[in-house]
Amino acid sequence: MTYCVGILLRDGLILMSDTRTNAGIDNISTYRKMHVLADADDRLILCMSAGNLSVTQHVLGQLAEGLPPLLADEQPRKIHHVPSMFRAAQLVGEAVMVAGRELKPALEEAGVSSGISLLVGGRIGDGPLKLFLVYDAGNFIECGADTPFLQIGATAYGKPILDRAMTYDSPLDEAVKVALLSFDGTIRSDLSVGLPFDMVVMPADPARPVIRRRIESDDAYFADLSRRWSMLLNESRATIPDPPFLNGAAT
Amino acid sequence: MTYCVGILLRDGLILMSDTRTNAGIDNISTYRKMHVLADADDRLILCMSAGNLSVTQHVLGQLAEGLPPLLADEQPRKIHHVPSMFRAAQLVGEAVMVAGRELKPALEEAGVSSGISLLVGGRIGDGPLKLFLVYDAGNFIECGADTPFLQIGATAYGKPILDRAMTYDSPLDEAVKVALLSFDGTIRSDLSVGLPFDMVVMPADPARPVIRRRIESDDAYFADLSRRWSMLLNESRATIPDPPFLNGAAT
Repeated sequence: MTYCVGILLRDGLILMSDTRTNAGIDNISTYRKMHVLADADDRLILCMSAGNLSVTQHVLGQLAEGLPPLLADEQPRKIHHVPSMFRAAQLVGEAVMVAGRELKPALEEAGVSSGISLLVGGRIGDGPLKLFLVYDAGNFIECGADTPFLQIGATAYGKPILDRAMTYDSPLDEAVKVALLSFDGTIRSDLSVGLPFDMVVMPADPARPVIRRRIESDDAYFADLSRRWSMLLNESRATIPDPPFLNGAAT
Repeated sequence: MTYCVGILLRDGLILMSDTRTNAGIDNISTYRKMHVLADADDRLILCMSAGNLSVTQHVLGQLAEGLPPLLADEQPRKIHHVPSMFRAAQLVGEAVMVAGRELKPALEEAGVSSGISLLVGGRIGDGPLKLFLVYDAGNFIECGADTPFLQIGATAYGKPILDRAMTYDSPLDEAVKVALLSFDGTIRSDLSVGLPFDMVVMPADPARPVIRRRIESDDAYFADLSRRWSMLLNESRATIPDPPFLNGAAT
């Protein structure tokens, strides 16, 4: 399994992914799910992936080589050449469709789950930061301000804290903290999601630096956050009065 | 969708279920998912249900009428007559198998999801409290002390708080509080789960009263718990230091 979150705020874009992959419960390894689709002077576009690893790699391979040109004498179509983030999401969606056509029949015959989903985020030129969720059929949706995050993989464990705490106006550092709490809850409840995490933070202000960081299993900040959060949750629970309707049932 | 939790502690058994049911997103109604299978001097056995409503009712109908006797001159087999909770779970599982055989072919042909799952809990005579999860195939597992709870329906949203806070030695009132927090997180993230909740608390000590309560949408305690918990989570988050690795990226 996998857990990836993309968060698009007024102040910037946050992408965070875990790195655990498994083929059966006894074959677990670490695999990067944060992929750079384009990193050039005029653009930084990343993609996070969940689902069948071979289908994902087929998509990434196509995007790296470029999709076949629409006219015979043109160049292969690459993320490096698209004029907008919308077109980038379209190209990723097209690669997902092609991979599905080529791989799904055999996978389905073998009874192997073939579904994937991708989060595509970044910026081209001076354009706005954008975040898209590309579904298994190649269609996609864009993240908006009302619910400023998109998730793929094991999404439910970490969703309540995002629902409670994440707004479009959350500051970047607060949002990174909430994202890490969302991952903390997920890895406690789902063994198929695990450290290290990959994180990319792109500030809306292009003058500020892009942060790329791998949060390792011995990361001091994450360990402290996790320990504090457990303690705070325990203390908070203790301050809530006990239910008044157990008269005589509880000691 | 549905959310039901059964919690089996040293001090007693807690069953809690929501009441929202939907056939499509535009056809939502309130439906009791906490069913009394037997309520007599020598036994109290309840069942909570998730999944296809018609299959569930087929199971409950069979159990009420009794399953066909094994010998021609015997009485129908009912939960009221089984000698142990294990036999009760077996009888429920048999009813699930029969319902599946009778209903699944037509439902699958119609493309309707036919799966159900059930939590069966209670006590017979002076025996110990027991809790079972009966799967769609009619097989079942018993709740043990290491993970003293079982969930059905939309289980993931509310699992992290149970994983963190629920132990076999939790007092009953604390455990009811944690169960309500688990429901609070779930209804925030999943519109298909909603108030009112049905709750039954059976103390391990047979001298103490069994509590049966419907927690309505205007329940003062639950509203206060939900408001306090939101406030406490916000305060707790604020006390965790911001990540140190966003140098220059965040304002």
